[in-house]
Amino acid sequence: MKILQGNIVYSPKLGELVTMEHGALVLDDAGQVADVLPIAPNHADAAYIDYGDKLLMPSFVDMHLHAPQYPMLGMGMDLPLMEWLNTYTFKTEARFADTDYARRTYRRLANDLITGGTTRVCMFSSLHTDATLILMEELERAGVTGCVGKVNMDRNSGDVLRESTEESKRETLRWLDACKRFEHIKPILTPRFTPSCTNELMAWLGALSEERDLRVQSHLSENGGEIAFVKELHPDCDQYWETYAKYGLWKDHTVMAHCVHSDAREREALLKHNVVVAHCAGSNINICSGVAPIRTMLREGVWVTLGSDIAGGAILAMNRVITMSIRASKILHMQTDGEAEFLTVDEAYYLGSTAGHRYFGADGGFSRGKPLHAIVVDDAVLAEPVRKLSLRERFERSIYLMDKSAIRAVWSDGRQVV
Amino acid sequence: MKILQGNIVYSPKLGELVTMEHGALVLDDAGQVADVLPIAPNHADAAYIDYGDKLLMPSFVDMHLHAPQYPMLGMGMDLPLMEWLNTYTFKTEARFADTDYARRTYRRLANDLITGGTTRVCMFSSLHTDATLILMEELERAGVTGCVGKVNMDRNSGDVLRESTEESKRETLRWLDACKRFEHIKPILTPRFTPSCTNELMAWLGALSEERDLRVQSHLSENGGEIAFVKELHPDCDQYWETYAKYGLWKDHTVMAHCVHSDAREREALLKHNVVVAHCAGSNINICSGVAPIRTMLREGVWVTLGSDIAGGAILAMNRVITMSIRASKILHMQTDGEAEFLTVDEAYYLGSTAGHRYFGADGGFSRGKPLHAIVVDDAVLAEPVRKLSLRERFERSIYLMDKSAIRAVWSDGRQVV
Repeated sequence: MKILQGNIVYSPKLGELVTMEHGALVLDDAGQVADVLPIAPNHADAAYIDYGDKLLMPSFVDMHLHAPQYPMLGMGMDLPLMEWLNTYTFKTEARFADTDYARRTYRRLANDLITGGTTRVCMFSSLHTDATLILMEELERAGVTGCVGKVNMDRNSGDVLRESTEESKRETLRWLDACKRFEHIKPILTPRFTPSCTNELMAWLGALSEERDLRVQSHLSENGGEIAFVKELHPDCDQYWETYAKYGLWKDHTVMAHCVHSDAREREALLKHNVVVAHCAGSNINICSGVAPIRTMLREGVWVTLGSDIAGGAILAMNRVITMSIRASKILHMQTDGEAEFLTVDEAYYLGSTAGHRYFGADGGFSRGKPLHAIVVDDAVLAEPVRKLSLRERFERSIYLMDKSAIRAVWSDGRQVV
Repeated sequence: MKILQGNIVYSPKLGELVTMEHGALVLDDAGQVADVLPIAPNHADAAYIDYGDKLLMPSFVDMHLHAPQYPMLGMGMDLPLMEWLNTYTFKTEARFADTDYARRTYRRLANDLITGGTTRVCMFSSLHTDATLILMEELERAGVTGCVGKVNMDRNSGDVLRESTEESKRETLRWLDACKRFEHIKPILTPRFTPSCTNELMAWLGALSEERDLRVQSHLSENGGEIAFVKELHPDCDQYWETYAKYGLWKDHTVMAHCVHSDAREREALLKHNVVVAHCAGSNINICSGVAPIRTMLREGVWVTLGSDIAGGAILAMNRVITMSIRASKILHMQTDGEAEFLTVDEAYYLGSTAGHRYFGADGGFSRGKPLHAIVVDDAVLAEPVRKLSLRERFERSIYLMDKSAIRAVWSDGRQVV
């Protein structure tokens, strides 16, 4: 048994923040949270880890990012979407046919994720099976857990990055077989998005998902041009989401990135099928896609999480993804003359932490009976505050200001990994 | 004579970026730029400083920030403006009656500015004369140059932070006398904003500005409630700017922060009188003030610079202030269905660097005959790029991604200070 002492902060529900000054987390031998207590209990046989005056809070979850786009972070941001894809994205992803390059890049990405406090991800790889397995190895080595998908894309992807329908199927099966060795990283089926996948491939992936009980991730309603193209490809579908539903890919725990332009009917389909929205505020602004109506989705009961969307997004640090989501919501607040309420910092942290952990089976912040995912934040490295701050104030300041230098320890899946 | 070698990047004009791979800056003995050359010249008596493959580019200029709000960075961001002012801002500023606290806080601020590559500022202090002098000392010690103002505010500022009209005048004169000892930091008259200053004080400051040839900084048209209040206080003035003009404070090189809601007539007055706009995109979103029409101002010829607006803004690093300005412009781009063009990274860097240096008499990037203000950026600390990048691409990536760890040297007013 381990007992972690520190200032505990977590968000069990949207808009609710629990703070316990000098509280304690009790972990069982498997690293699972046994109890959250306002004061450390006495146990003769427990190992005590005292984080002193630091903050002990649930880690971040990045529910949408493209690992092979990490080397083009912060590049081509002045280009329109199609030019950006052709000049940078596809060429960059194509580079991951080189497994040495993949190893170097993914080792760095995994390290940057975990030291930044992101312990769970739902991630796109490229179409390359070997590089995808290397990515999973490097995440596992660093202590990052979650889901990774080999991308399926058998049409409309330019010359440099293409697989035939047959290759896509064969490589997917080879990849799934090889994934069995991973303990903390699981495979997720990843049709890039409707324009990139033939109907044959989509149908095959839907059947495979059903057969092997695999989850699915993709993109939905990011921008107008894309939506129009999908309509052209599937004239029988009234809405974008139906192109996934038609092939059995629209189901419980499917993750859809963006949903910027999802209208009431599409949002109803999200809610009804328990499909998860990965909101990527920074990326949606960078690429001029729009601002997703997150407040409306939350009011309707849709499951919303956050994603960095590297490299449409230029920020990997999830605390900054959280503050960017707040700013995006303030844009909508202003546009609607205050009618759409903006996200508070408590709410945005909930989306970037608890709502993501829920995807992996843990709920309510520090979930009893579930492996610990936490960060230890030393806010004393930030500027001296003007007076003694409440724990709530220290939490807010940390979300706005922390960088890696303030993150002093990271726990992932019950183990201390940083 | 000194010769600095490196990859030179600067923006001489809005939208223009000059790049010279392995170029050279020639400095005379006073630290002034004598030449910018595509290849280092041979001089027997010159000292060579070789920055190798690093980027050598003009430093950043922060044209609006509140030094005494630094300890409340990233706090109270969920509060409406008036509650934020009363809960945090005025109480925080009041703390600077304590000169020890001021010394500690301002030393840290000055250090954070210079190591972040900001070598010139146009800055608000609090109303405290002694703390203001300490601020100027600490900036001077760190190598930050520019203008600092003791704030004048003799009404509507709550209980904790108040000076009488007489005190305000007397302390302003005492402060100005004491400023003569500073070499790199100059005083600027700083009526907080129209609601905080009686007509008598405004008139006195206007006369003093004229008499001693002093520049002026204040706030303009930040949000609707403020604008309505100003109208109430000055029913004789059609527009906000006229409340400054009436007292001789609206003149060449006056700096006005925000200008979010400045309409065509107010923008015309900005242009006609060569008043400088300090655009504070992050702050304007955080406090839900709006998004200033920067592209329109630029098209009309208005002089626009950038400000972090600490602590309405939560980001001190000017490269991130630059990228936030780009994002804000993309919001307007989307709102106008693409009619308002967004700021490119070259343009936004121009605003956060060259346009600010111009305020202090240097123009065109690396200005011949002017003291060097520059940063040296080691972008090799960023993730390995996918291929050899152009200098233009390395510049963009650096603006999006750099933090202090990438800034390896800083030159300010001709001296290397970091």
